[in-house]
Amino acid sequence: MRQILEQNLNIKKIGWPDFFRCINEELVILEDNLRNKLPTKSSLLKEVISYIFNAGGKRLRPAICFLTAKGTGRITDKHIILSELTELIHTASLIHDDIIDSAKLRRKRETINSLWNDKISVITGDFLFAQASIRLGKLENTEIVKIYAKVLSDLCDGEIEQYSLLFNINISWEDYINKSTTKTASLFAACCKSAAILNEMDTASITMAHEYGNFLGIAFQIVDDILDFTGSSAELGKEAGSDLKQGIITAPALFALKSNDNRARQLKTIIENKFDESTEDFKKAVQLIHELGGCEKAKRLAMEYSEKSKETLYFIRDHEIKSFMLQATDFVLERIS
Amino acid sequence: MRQILEQNLNIKKIGWPDFFRCINEELVILEDNLRNKLPTKSSLLKEVISYIFNAGGKRLRPAICFLTAKGTGRITDKHIILSELTELIHTASLIHDDIIDSAKLRRKRETINSLWNDKISVITGDFLFAQASIRLGKLENTEIVKIYAKVLSDLCDGEIEQYSLLFNINISWEDYINKSTTKTASLFAACCKSAAILNEMDTASITMAHEYGNFLGIAFQIVDDILDFTGSSAELGKEAGSDLKQGIITAPALFALKSNDNRARQLKTIIENKFDESTEDFKKAVQLIHELGGCEKAKRLAMEYSEKSKETLYFIRDHEIKSFMLQATDFVLERIS
Repeated sequence: MRQILEQNLNIKKIGWPDFFRCINEELVILEDNLRNKLPTKSSLLKEVISYIFNAGGKRLRPAICFLTAKGTGRITDKHIILSELTELIHTASLIHDDIIDSAKLRRKRETINSLWNDKISVITGDFLFAQASIRLGKLENTEIVKIYAKVLSDLCDGEIEQYSLLFNINISWEDYINKSTTKTASLFAACCKSAAILNEMDTASITMAHEYGNFLGIAFQIVDDILDFTGSSAELGKEAGSDLKQGIITAPALFALKSNDNRARQLKTIIENKFDESTEDFKKAVQLIHELGGCEKAKRLAMEYSEKSKETLYFIRDHEIKSFMLQATDFVLERIS
Repeated sequence: MRQILEQNLNIKKIGWPDFFRCINEELVILEDNLRNKLPTKSSLLKEVISYIFNAGGKRLRPAICFLTAKGTGRITDKHIILSELTELIHTASLIHDDIIDSAKLRRKRETINSLWNDKISVITGDFLFAQASIRLGKLENTEIVKIYAKVLSDLCDGEIEQYSLLFNINISWEDYINKSTTKTASLFAACCKSAAILNEMDTASITMAHEYGNFLGIAFQIVDDILDFTGSSAELGKEAGSDLKQGIITAPALFALKSNDNRARQLKTIIENKFDESTEDFKKAVQLIHELGGCEKAKRLAMEYSEKSKETLYFIRDHEIKSFMLQATDFVLERIS
């Protein structure tokens, strides 16, 4: 069964890291469900869904969900449903975010709004959210319904917060961490916590599972924000510095803005003036952020959060699984090492 | 309390029908919750939400939800949450539909996408869906979670179906009723059914509550479709025939297309050719639909569904409430009488 699925899905292309091997079987089932089992009669929607899920992606959220499940007992059918709905919510929110951010590229490929249009993006996102809700119903667990309802609310809050803080050079660290928590870490935390709940763990372990996901999610977001500055356009699959260009102030920019250096003032002025819509000014801003050590400092911050997430892992008693989870945490940072 | 709320909300402007008086108190609380209690820190979102919910609206879905609750026992706090989440889902889906249909006007007022933009519409719709999910969690009832997950899925299916059938003159009655069920009746049915579930009714009554909402919802949709042809632009708050102009084939057009008359063939050609983008051709199509008796026949169909919904009402034992529910059913048809 697994071999047939792997062949059909051309799984090798996905390139899951080695430490995923203990959850390989479940990841293959998840992949098949996402690619081939979402029920729609519409040929247009089928095409869009196939475009989205065949793009690959590391399925990091499902993976840490499965690892938490394995580390707190075993991976049940409900955990597969849980990881699936987590990936569906993640994907739906990206599709709607791409409308909001007018994004043209994601993971080196054209976005749905770019290749089709905003309308198709709205429908597709809503469809994936609805499919996630159906899976939430199947779990028959009101606590998990509440957890994921909060995630949906957090995702909106994060997006609204980001939208309302564009080009705002007075954003605080609290704003930034809060936005990273709601936009990213909330879903990481929810899937880890829910995985532990489904295995009927004690309250302390459930809290730790939540914390693990939360800290890992924040680290992940900071890494993403660093990559936006350090990656080449080819690696990123989108223009470097594209967040800043839109006015989104992330960790590297924030460190640069808050440094005690005259160049910080210069950076403030350039951002406040929205780069005067000139490429020169934008390039100067990126250069100043690099000069002021924004990316190095952000990297240290990401490592701090990564360490915090590792420290929660004492609730995982199985040594092998724990070591895989530590590797998963390191993997998040590897992208910037 | 009620008086203060009524004054603050300027409830008289809403103009609820008389037979709503037995649920007036609950409707006032609902109205206050929708207008003033949705939690957001964003001033922009506050403005958008206030714009939406201060537009009035009859709150028909909450009303039939409350009536069903009263008719099957009593209206509990959970019924208020239920009716609120129902209105939230309804509103969110309208906002997203307006993006998909590029609608400029709704209820005589500019749409969110027209007054703000598509991005704000996406965020606002997602926010309202998320708020609905939070309320769904509060009900702590996994059966109702499943019912509403199916509604979300139905709403998408309906929208996709509508989108894929634009200008398709071969659409069948089954297609039309199916689309009306998923796009409209599903939510009516869900709130009636769930109201009965919360009052712990027997299975037969729960099924009848579902059927009541379902038939009423289909009647409501047909009436809406008739009004699109018979209302003046001033009454509708949007251009008359605007559904047809977009290529949406509704009951009046369908009756006309399926009539045994040479003019039906003429109508087919005009629609198939998408009116050659000419106002003349569009006007001709509307005229043919009237000539071929499309609206009268559609009215009879709406009455049939209205009668079907009344026939389910034997599960309501309280005579007074039953008579209010019969009036509510007639009220849906009154708009075209």
